[in-house]
Amino acid sequence: MPAAERAGIGVALLGAGWISRVHLAALQRIGGARLAAVASRTRASAERVTAGQAGAKAFTFDELPQLLGDPSVKLVCVNSPNRLHAEHALAALEAGKDVVVEKPLCLTLDEADSVCSAARRHGRVLGYAENLCFAPLYRRARELLREGAVGRVLWARQVEKHGGPYSPWFFDRAEAGGGALMDMGCHGIEALRFVFDRPAVRAVSARLATTLHSDETDLDDDAEVRLELAGGVTLVSESSWAVTSGMQSALEVHGTEGTLFLDLMGETGLRLAKRDGGVTRPPVDPLLEHGYVGELAHFVAAAGGAPLEEAGEDGRAVLEILLAAYASAGQGGREIALPFRPPAGVTRPVDLWRPATGAV
Amino acid sequence: MPAAERAGIGVALLGAGWISRVHLAALQRIGGARLAAVASRTRASAERVTAGQAGAKAFTFDELPQLLGDPSVKLVCVNSPNRLHAEHALAALEAGKDVVVEKPLCLTLDEADSVCSAARRHGRVLGYAENLCFAPLYRRARELLREGAVGRVLWARQVEKHGGPYSPWFFDRAEAGGGALMDMGCHGIEALRFVFDRPAVRAVSARLATTLHSDETDLDDDAEVRLELAGGVTLVSESSWAVTSGMQSALEVHGTEGTLFLDLMGETGLRLAKRDGGVTRPPVDPLLEHGYVGELAHFVAAAGGAPLEEAGEDGRAVLEILLAAYASAGQGGREIALPFRPPAGVTRPVDLWRPATGAV
Amino acid sequence: MPAAERAGIGVALLGAGWISRVHLAALQRIGGARLAAVASRTRASAERVTAGQAGAKAFTFDELPQLLGDPSVKLVCVNSPNRLHAEHALAALEAGKDVVVEKPLCLTLDEADSVCSAARRHGRVLGYAENLCFAPLYRRARELLREGAVGRVLWARQVEKHGGPYSPWFFDRAEAGGGALMDMGCHGIEALRFVFDRPAVRAVSARLATTLHSDETDLDDDAEVRLELAGGVTLVSESSWAVTSGMQSALEVHGTEGTLFLDLMGETGLRLAKRDGGVTRPPVDPLLEHGYVGELAHFVAAAGGAPLEEAGEDGRAVLEILLAAYASAGQGGREIALPFRPPAGVTRPVDLWRPATGAV
Amino acid sequence: MPAAERAGIGVALLGAGWISRVHLAALQRIGGARLAAVASRTRASAERVTAGQAGAKAFTFDELPQLLGDPSVKLVCVNSPNRLHAEHALAALEAGKDVVVEKPLCLTLDEADSVCSAARRHGRVLGYAENLCFAPLYRRARELLREGAVGRVLWARQVEKHGGPYSPWFFDRAEAGGGALMDMGCHGIEALRFVFDRPAVRAVSARLATTLHSDETDLDDDAEVRLELAGGVTLVSESSWAVTSGMQSALEVHGTEGTLFLDLMGETGLRLAKRDGGVTRPPVDPLLEHGYVGELAHFVAAAGGAPLEEAGEDGRAVLEILLAAYASAGQGGREIALPFRPPAGVTRPVDLWRPATGAV
Repeated sequence: MPAAERAGIGVALLGAGWISRVHLAALQRIGGARLAAVASRTRASAERVTAGQAGAKAFTFDELPQLLGDPSVKLVCVNSPNRLHAEHALAALEAGKDVVVEKPLCLTLDEADSVCSAARRHGRVLGYAENLCFAPLYRRARELLREGAVGRVLWARQVEKHGGPYSPWFFDRAEAGGGALMDMGCHGIEALRFVFDRPAVRAVSARLATTLHSDETDLDDDAEVRLELAGGVTLVSESSWAVTSGMQSALEVHGTEGTLFLDLMGETGLRLAKRDGGVTRPPVDPLLEHGYVGELAHFVAAAGGAPLEEAGEDGRAVLEILLAAYASAGQGGREIALPFRPPAGVTRPVDLWRPATGAV
Repeated sequence: MPAAERAGIGVALLGAGWISRVHLAALQRIGGARLAAVASRTRASAERVTAGQAGAKAFTFDELPQLLGDPSVKLVCVNSPNRLHAEHALAALEAGKDVVVEKPLCLTLDEADSVCSAARRHGRVLGYAENLCFAPLYRRARELLREGAVGRVLWARQVEKHGGPYSPWFFDRAEAGGGALMDMGCHGIEALRFVFDRPAVRAVSARLATTLHSDETDLDDDAEVRLELAGGVTLVSESSWAVTSGMQSALEVHGTEGTLFLDLMGETGLRLAKRDGGVTRPPVDPLLEHGYVGELAHFVAAAGGAPLEEAGEDGRAVLEILLAAYASAGQGGREIALPFRPPAGVTRPVDLWRPATGAV
Repeated sequence: MPAAERAGIGVALLGAGWISRVHLAALQRIGGARLAAVASRTRASAERVTAGQAGAKAFTFDELPQLLGDPSVKLVCVNSPNRLHAEHALAALEAGKDVVVEKPLCLTLDEADSVCSAARRHGRVLGYAENLCFAPLYRRARELLREGAVGRVLWARQVEKHGGPYSPWFFDRAEAGGGALMDMGCHGIEALRFVFDRPAVRAVSARLATTLHSDETDLDDDAEVRLELAGGVTLVSESSWAVTSGMQSALEVHGTEGTLFLDLMGETGLRLAKRDGGVTRPPVDPLLEHGYVGELAHFVAAAGGAPLEEAGEDGRAVLEILLAAYASAGQGGREIALPFRPPAGVTRPVDLWRPATGAV
Repeated sequence: MPAAERAGIGVALLGAGWISRVHLAALQRIGGARLAAVASRTRASAERVTAGQAGAKAFTFDELPQLLGDPSVKLVCVNSPNRLHAEHALAALEAGKDVVVEKPLCLTLDEADSVCSAARRHGRVLGYAENLCFAPLYRRARELLREGAVGRVLWARQVEKHGGPYSPWFFDRAEAGGGALMDMGCHGIEALRFVFDRPAVRAVSARLATTLHSDETDLDDDAEVRLELAGGVTLVSESSWAVTSGMQSALEVHGTEGTLFLDLMGETGLRLAKRDGGVTRPPVDPLLEHGYVGELAHFVAAAGGAPLEEAGEDGRAVLEILLAAYASAGQGGREIALPFRPPAGVTRPVDLWRPATGAV
């Protein structure tokens, strides 16, 4: 998106790790917002994120009051280590900012309660940044489940696993508060709450282990959590840092009329297997996947001055090939050299292949 | 996107068929544009598209001068039957509008030349609406090919097939100018030109047939087109209206170092098979697929007043479950009833499972 | 296989349900054995299995002594309901027969011990019929794991699920002794023991539920069993009668160097995902899959008098097409009508396309 | 299969390359035949195949008369280079042997005619060794097509491709007679004839090219052949030595009611996509895939003295785990240590979980 459009509300990122870089990349894909500030433990790491972002300022966590005093900052994303989530969110809310907190919200229910009540007290937005709730596949799965695609739900499982975290603090008990369950199980639990429309959870049980990373941490690196719903349904969340073959993010929902399988990593996408044995792959977002959204966005941008990528000349080039193809078919498939121009008077390309038969 | 944001440039759609409805749906997904007008053969069909679109006016094709005289219309999408493309595009360009022409550009090279030169003469945008060039999978394929993912390209094929067109005029020689090649081959030829960065085509050959639909039309419903490139590479475009089992849009590119397979309909997505036997599934657009783009767009919209979908209270609910899970694991996996509140003083959830071992 | 070859040892099937019909079909695919007798609760149901099997006799369970007194019966397959397994196996062993017992072996450890010791005492074969141990995919998985394909194993899961049993007695507490765990978990537990080469199991835990079939039975229809191995590895067996979308039989094994996925129902077969991100699909049984085993078996049978399916005339027909194809390519791809015979003197088909260039 | 069973008819292999090694491996998987002799250009290469095969003799091609004079040789497999097929087959037929000729049958129609008539004259079997006709997936595809699974067939394509041949003689014009079309197209053409039950071919056209291997050979390494059937259907055979990413063997058949996809290399197996949008994966050979054939063959062999792999003790071990699992479920899922023996008097495992409810 052209720089000129990167106006919009000012966004500050607290933290300069992997998720802040993801937020910055996402920011550049949407309209209505721009990077205003980044804070980190050190100014140097904050500056690595602001580099090349015109107008974005770098701060240390100690300078948070200055960052929050900037009236151009409207939305603050709390991407710091888990231990600092509550402190950072509270400071931002009290400074009158809208706030987004990266998962997990914080480490204790006391913290959670004070952050939530601060948002209400100050009348500010307090967003909880669970990305899976915005992933097209999970949104489509929720839609299908709402439509009763598998009948009455009997049992479901979400799997969220990979080989281990991006930053050393994830292995640190004080900074992270927990291991793979805290980091990955967070995703699975909220994804289950999301696709099942926030059901009441009656009871919880779990098994944890430290397997692959036992030399590096005493935190859990493998977890199975069971959520028992009021109606007798069990939702299972499996999370792990002990899968060495790459990221897994998957959902299976078994019901009285079939099974929904979701595989975010692309092997099989979304599948709906029904009682009768048929399997369909429901389209997820065809407008987007087939390019129609991008196409129109591109042409609207071009009308606003952005460079044009697909022009009339491309359409002409295609037409020339189509005409040559019809001519070739009309001559037993022989090669037609380009450039090609049909005899004058041919106004319907197909006439180069064969004249109207009048048969139909 | 909330109505308030549907300001932006006025877009007019000429034609009220399937593709105009697709354009309208896409328009509602992007910022910076709004539906201003629709024209069709009859006012009734135009009104079926404008229904519910505040401020959008319906016209017949005969009233095109009035539509084009409206200064709030800035961008005109020519979605009428193929026969009318050139006439409609010329009228819009002469009225000073930016223009997007749906594929195929028009029916003769004379028409194509006059449309392209009119755009240049009037200094207007003339966009060619080939959606596959904006489909994330094809864009990612182009990126991989540019990076040399399959080595030197030896041979490629694009397949674009389904069971037949949406409107009766596609079967009409005068309206459509050709059959499946005109309708579907258009996509394949431009998709090949796109992923291979508009290579020079030396010669073209083709075979056509009328198979499944021979009772309904004498136009081609099955086509194979071969594009011979200067360097000896052959690109094959297969298009058809004679595949009854659903849409196919696929690409395979064979090179000296491996093969790229693209399957837009989701069975296998994008796969890269290398000489050494390994197969990878390159991520297509992880920021989008994992929800990060949608998440940030949502929170920016919420900061602008839109309703919040993922709130601090959701984060609190997840945290309560995490705490109960750690407690359950600490008690041999027994069920912990909700609501749950850990004993006072527990500040690190993992402590509910087991205390620090000091082992690491 | 022709009837004449169905000589070999006499096999008796006790039980006339689904699994006995499977055994009979398998018997007809292998050499060295023939159906000698079937017993069931009623003679009528036994006769439905012996129908068309020359020389096979039908008995009721009450007539078991007569069946076992037939010296032509050498191998007895105990396919009766679980409750009768021990009684039937003991009777057959005491009559000097080799015995195969369908899973589960029996209902109590006392029964199991007496059956096993009877086999040893009488010096007879006592086979345990777990079919997954003979499924090519599971055998290949064992081979790959033995070769260290995933490194040190961290965690594994086997899933064996479908929508419910074939016969009413499976829902009967006295006949079956248990539900989905007894019926399906049996498969999963032995499949895990098999692929991991019968590891020592230190402890077992399980969760059971009655979900989909609670109106029909009070037995378990959904089960999760965890086997804790001495070395800290956990093997999970999930079994169910509550998956309505068709059979699932799958294995995933996570290790320090990657993951092995096995899907018996064909969606993805066998996949090996490695640390480096590559995924391979190890061939399972190429000799068989590519037809070489069947081909040679066919020709050996044909040499023994069976009708020939692929004859020299077929090879000639292919050759004629090859020659016509080379001739067509030599003439710019034009159609060559069959029958076709090249000009005399052409001894190398490719010469019809182009003469030797001497370039190489 | 134990050595003792490797009696049966004597088989001679002419040629000692890849396909003879495949034949030997297949021979060891079936009953009723044994390797009697191998001939090759040099005795050394023949001996590399006979090594370890008790009673098998090695010859040079010059010693063919001696090999053919051995009365224990009943079936001769002609696996020599293409140029020698006719000469070798004729010699064997004249010596009174049954003969199998590896594809292609030979290089000229004169040769083909004389081989076929020799077989008739001598009353011997002349088998044409096209392995795909014996591949379970292709056989199942034929069955489905015969059942009308895709309705009336409109168009079909078989693809047979890999990166190049196993032996240098395949690149030699005189030895091979042609390139990828001769080597790979052979498979595709007969596979198409097979699955469509030997339809009458009206005409043939083809395009050939030398692409990847142009530095090594002037033979074709890429081919497209079109078979026009009497009824208007086109069957396309694509063959190539220019796919560097591994073997492809695939079939797609489009009809009025859907599409059948076959992928021999395992990515997707066999799929049937119907007009209504559902996709099923028809079972190919469930008796074999689920292990029932292997299981029974194993137990029959064990009854004949072969070592037993799945014994009663395995069934006991499974039962012990089942009992422990029921006990664990009855105690809230806690771990039950092995060895485990239930309290005396428990005769139905499920009673360890919960007593009969009498509810059903």
